[in-house]
Amino acid sequence: MSDATAPQRIALIGLGTIGMSFAGLHLARDNTTVDVYDTRPDFEQYLFDTLPHFLVQPEQSGESTAEDVSTRQGAVRSLIDAGRLHIHTSLETACASATIIQEQGPESLPFKQSLWAQVEAIAPATAHFWTSTSGIPASKQQAQLQDKTRLLVVHPFNPPHIMPLLEIVPSPETATERVDFVHGYFSVPGSKHRPVVIRKEIPGFVGNRLAFALLREACYLVKEDVVSVKDLDTILMASLGPRWAGNGVFESYQQGGGPGGIGELLEKLSGTVQHVWDGLGQVNLLDEEGAEWKEKVVKQTNEAYGTLTAPQLREKEERLKDFVKTQSKTYGYDKSDV
Amino acid sequence: MSDATAPQRIALIGLGTIGMSFAGLHLARDNTTVDVYDTRPDFEQYLFDTLPHFLVQPEQSGESTAEDVSTRQGAVRSLIDAGRLHIHTSLETACASATIIQEQGPESLPFKQSLWAQVEAIAPATAHFWTSTSGIPASKQQAQLQDKTRLLVVHPFNPPHIMPLLEIVPSPETATERVDFVHGYFSVPGSKHRPVVIRKEIPGFVGNRLAFALLREACYLVKEDVVSVKDLDTILMASLGPRWAGNGVFESYQQGGGPGGIGELLEKLSGTVQHVWDGLGQVNLLDEEGAEWKEKVVKQTNEAYGTLTAPQLREKEERLKDFVKTQSKTYGYDKSDV
Repeated sequence: MSDATAPQRIALIGLGTIGMSFAGLHLARDNTTVDVYDTRPDFEQYLFDTLPHFLVQPEQSGESTAEDVSTRQGAVRSLIDAGRLHIHTSLETACASATIIQEQGPESLPFKQSLWAQVEAIAPATAHFWTSTSGIPASKQQAQLQDKTRLLVVHPFNPPHIMPLLEIVPSPETATERVDFVHGYFSVPGSKHRPVVIRKEIPGFVGNRLAFALLREACYLVKEDVVSVKDLDTILMASLGPRWAGNGVFESYQQGGGPGGIGELLEKLSGTVQHVWDGLGQVNLLDEEGAEWKEKVVKQTNEAYGTLTAPQLREKEERLKDFVKTQSKTYGYDKSDV
Repeated sequence: MSDATAPQRIALIGLGTIGMSFAGLHLARDNTTVDVYDTRPDFEQYLFDTLPHFLVQPEQSGESTAEDVSTRQGAVRSLIDAGRLHIHTSLETACASATIIQEQGPESLPFKQSLWAQVEAIAPATAHFWTSTSGIPASKQQAQLQDKTRLLVVHPFNPPHIMPLLEIVPSPETATERVDFVHGYFSVPGSKHRPVVIRKEIPGFVGNRLAFALLREACYLVKEDVVSVKDLDTILMASLGPRWAGNGVFESYQQGGGPGGIGELLEKLSGTVQHVWDGLGQVNLLDEEGAEWKEKVVKQTNEAYGTLTAPQLREKEERLKDFVKTQSKTYGYDKSDV
């Protein structure tokens, strides 16, 4: 198995937003070659229009402007001229020399099963197969593969060129070396990414399960008129968001529990916490009642935010970069770890 | 009812960590006088040792050092000499001239009911009564009050001198002017705080319900060996933490849904989300099985973090200030709102 720090040639299949962002991620390294393939007819033009935005590096947050983006369209041409980026019109040529094949195609099981079978027929025998799916486990996608040890899920959080998390979810058949390789690839020195291996295939993996657990209670509280959509968002941003940007949930309670840590806290507050757990909302998206509360949530969300404009989205993205950058800042207090 | 921007005299009852942090919050304004009362025998010394840490202003984040803290002990003396801070040995003198009385006492219903009855007998008739409780609603605390319109919950997130959120939870008897006043007090120009009024008394209010909903799923995933404590914390910090520091949960999905917003997203993903919701963990803290998974969670948390040292805590606090400061930073993109 090749070393994860060695030069890699990555074939990206499917260049929607996630695919573009992954292209930006891979091209930010200096020892990669990226082959891109997408079935949309205007693909080349689309790539020139879209990819520049994803070539912004996290270190430059707050510095770039709209003009930089138009200037950076030349950067796409330069990457092509330098042989680091190749645009393909066939799956065969895209995969021909790949060490890694990563797909961001439609979330359809037949599509993915058939894609991997095609890819296996044309790709080098050692290439790694990575799927960016948020919901279809590798154990299902691999059905038509001869060698089921090559495929695993690399689930990003959008947008992957900024967001550090990659959930690595192997199937029971995936080879350990394949898991080690992808973990190594995203952990090379200087990487801003934090790959985490999930030990069991489970719907929603881990990040979305945590998000959906909170979302369900959020929907319940809006349904019950305890709080508005806008006020609930304010509460989250003014408390748990910044807390969990700095500490995970377990470390937060370890800290909140004082010298006794989370053990003392769960002991002392067991009645309170269980009382809240027992009363958490059980809203349902699919039944009759779901239509009613969903309408309320959607209406209040539209009133609060409307459709976010491109400049608003850009502002949010720059802020996200700053949050991520602050996570690795040191302040000179934490000498005890040194 | 007095104007929330007018000078206020705040009596703080109970100067544990939350009380000290509130003292720092109130003293950061220039038109407040703070009266502090606590029953601990070494209270004055404890105040001189502890309060300086809470006098650090958010704007100075990353700048202060341990030496500054010792220097700032003089700041406590200066506040006393300037008549802005008064140390009391009796509840009577502490409350005698207050416009606001705020308690951070033990989480005991009999204690709070009896305290408010005593306070009502000695405080000016117009003074506002604020309780920092995380769990005992105003409607229960007010039982022995003659005038039940004065009391409401001001639930902070720790530490309130840094964390912007204050959950304002009136009882059905609380007067609207009392709610308006506290909302106004924490919203004055230049305030870093974001008060939110919760419309119904509910266990855990809103912030802790959201936190506990996520915590329950986190405990379940550790119990089932899907992920370790440390890896779960990494996942949260590398994805949802920074995302929710920049956007609330509804705004995030509004954004993630593209032009159709959260409405389209909930429509398209209703099956997926409901499938995850139906499978969320139902761990219980109080039954036999609870003892087992709790032991696993506590053991893994202790192994991952041990007891956080004072410098580590300080580092985390400075980082938290930076996250909060970044929330109000502008990047020059969001012209559409101007």
